[in-house]
Amino acid sequence: MNASERPQAPLLTNPRADRVREVAKLAGRSARLRQKRFLAEGPQAVREALRLHQTRRTAGEAAVVDEVYLTAETLERYPEFGSVVPPRMVTPEVLAEMSSTVTPQGAVAVCRFIDSPLTVVLQRRPRLIAVLVEVRDPGNAGTILRAADSAGADAVVLTSGSVDIYNPKAVRSTVGSLFHLPVVVGIDPGTLLRELSDRAVTLLAADGYGTWNLDRLQDASAARRLAPSIGSTDSPDAGGPFLEAPTAWLFGNEAQGLGQDVLQAADYRVSVPIYGSAESLNVGTAATVCLYASARAQRLEGR
Amino acid sequence: MNASERPQAPLLTNPRADRVREVAKLAGRSARLRQKRFLAEGPQAVREALRLHQTRRTAGEAAVVDEVYLTAETLERYPEFGSVVPPRMVTPEVLAEMSSTVTPQGAVAVCRFIDSPLTVVLQRRPRLIAVLVEVRDPGNAGTILRAADSAGADAVVLTSGSVDIYNPKAVRSTVGSLFHLPVVVGIDPGTLLRELSDRAVTLLAADGYGTWNLDRLQDASAARRLAPSIGSTDSPDAGGPFLEAPTAWLFGNEAQGLGQDVLQAADYRVSVPIYGSAESLNVGTAATVCLYASARAQRLEGR
Repeated sequence: MNASERPQAPLLTNPRADRVREVAKLAGRSARLRQKRFLAEGPQAVREALRLHQTRRTAGEAAVVDEVYLTAETLERYPEFGSVVPPRMVTPEVLAEMSSTVTPQGAVAVCRFIDSPLTVVLQRRPRLIAVLVEVRDPGNAGTILRAADSAGADAVVLTSGSVDIYNPKAVRSTVGSLFHLPVVVGIDPGTLLRELSDRAVTLLAADGYGTWNLDRLQDASAARRLAPSIGSTDSPDAGGPFLEAPTAWLFGNEAQGLGQDVLQAADYRVSVPIYGSAESLNVGTAATVCLYASARAQRLEGR
Repeated sequence: MNASERPQAPLLTNPRADRVREVAKLAGRSARLRQKRFLAEGPQAVREALRLHQTRRTAGEAAVVDEVYLTAETLERYPEFGSVVPPRMVTPEVLAEMSSTVTPQGAVAVCRFIDSPLTVVLQRRPRLIAVLVEVRDPGNAGTILRAADSAGADAVVLTSGSVDIYNPKAVRSTVGSLFHLPVVVGIDPGTLLRELSDRAVTLLAADGYGTWNLDRLQDASAARRLAPSIGSTDSPDAGGPFLEAPTAWLFGNEAQGLGQDVLQAADYRVSVPIYGSAESLNVGTAATVCLYASARAQRLEGR
């Protein structure tokens, strides 16, 4: 019997039903940790959650989506949402009550935690990793995760002091990217950096005071490709990191940046140059520039 | 008589005073348009406002800051805030009432509109301009302005359908950058694009469906510099834009992107490549990558 043949559960109309309350609780961290589940809200997040669910189920792996709640209007607009996990139909009022957003846009999925163990990520010989060290703002964390996805990074790691990536605002800020690449959470920074170093992954600390200028590193990388003689030891960038090497970028706290211990454990401190008179870059913006610089260097290398 | 010798006005203690209400009104667009003034909130914005004020006054130009409101604690911490424009001391309660932020952090300045006429900007032969076409979110507008400042852009232009850059949230998102580079507002897109074209500024539309890949353009630019033979007409990028040329980047609405008229008026449609499975980039993120690509190409050209 496939999903469409299943007898349909009755429409949920009571915003104060226990089931509604259980879902709504997932906006809070303690309920998420207890249930090991979180909310994907809105059609885009639900679509990506269902897509990952299907991929994993096909591969014989654990389920991602436990429950899908849709309004009639949403199911009509996105009939494919009804074909993976049998959806429970709800009124807009019930959906609003379940969701932490003002406009949940007719779709909510209850998902199981999908983070990956660090060992699994490391076994796959990652070439590009984004590490968030005590990044506290859910919007920033989501933006970095989305940028990492766009840059084709192999994984995102959030250290133990960082925001909960399952926070509804963080999930929303990833615009579905949370379901696209492996995410590792709750890792001790010291352990992480040792593990990465052991595997010859270059640790680049994104640091406004860094001595290595990202634009010069990009230029050195281009020079190695295009005109090898320019990339010789005469270059002012000699001794600097190779952006084309397997790399983990370390991004720090919005206010304090990276701590001394992390800066010291890093192989190089790299700054995104500021050409105008801005005092600093937003961490999400800086991360995007750094990750794209590595992605370009790594992808062009083989040409 | 300098500022410090001036007799000090009495401490403002009544959150319901007319003066407090007048300042608070500037959170609204209609009051801003009527008064042609806006709010800079928090120490960083106030510092940059005062800095621009001083620069302009020294050059015999119009004032920027009309009024500065500080708590005693703020003046103690930043004594320089009291030396440019005589500050009015207020209680934290008064400051909270004046400000649109939850935590105004002890400093508010009432500033006159500081946008520049387009003609003035164009006379200075700009090399890099960011154009916001119907960008509606104040946070995105602020982020792009900050990124433009960081990339050393010569100006930011907001077309008539874009968010009001004097909106308190937009001002905050620029983290002081609003006071760093010329900003032009309320311009008709058609007029703007003609004016820029007339001055041989290349119009690059940032467009997810663009046929020119930004990373390849960067590579072509590096090739022209480093190994001129690679940049010959055999290159797959032949006929594409030169990132090192004077450029205006066009960034569109968060949901709809750029309209057909703007896309057709642009010289090239350029996409930021997406290497992973993200559907799109946030407009602020894409703008950062584009502006930095141009900044790097333009700055390295002369080496």
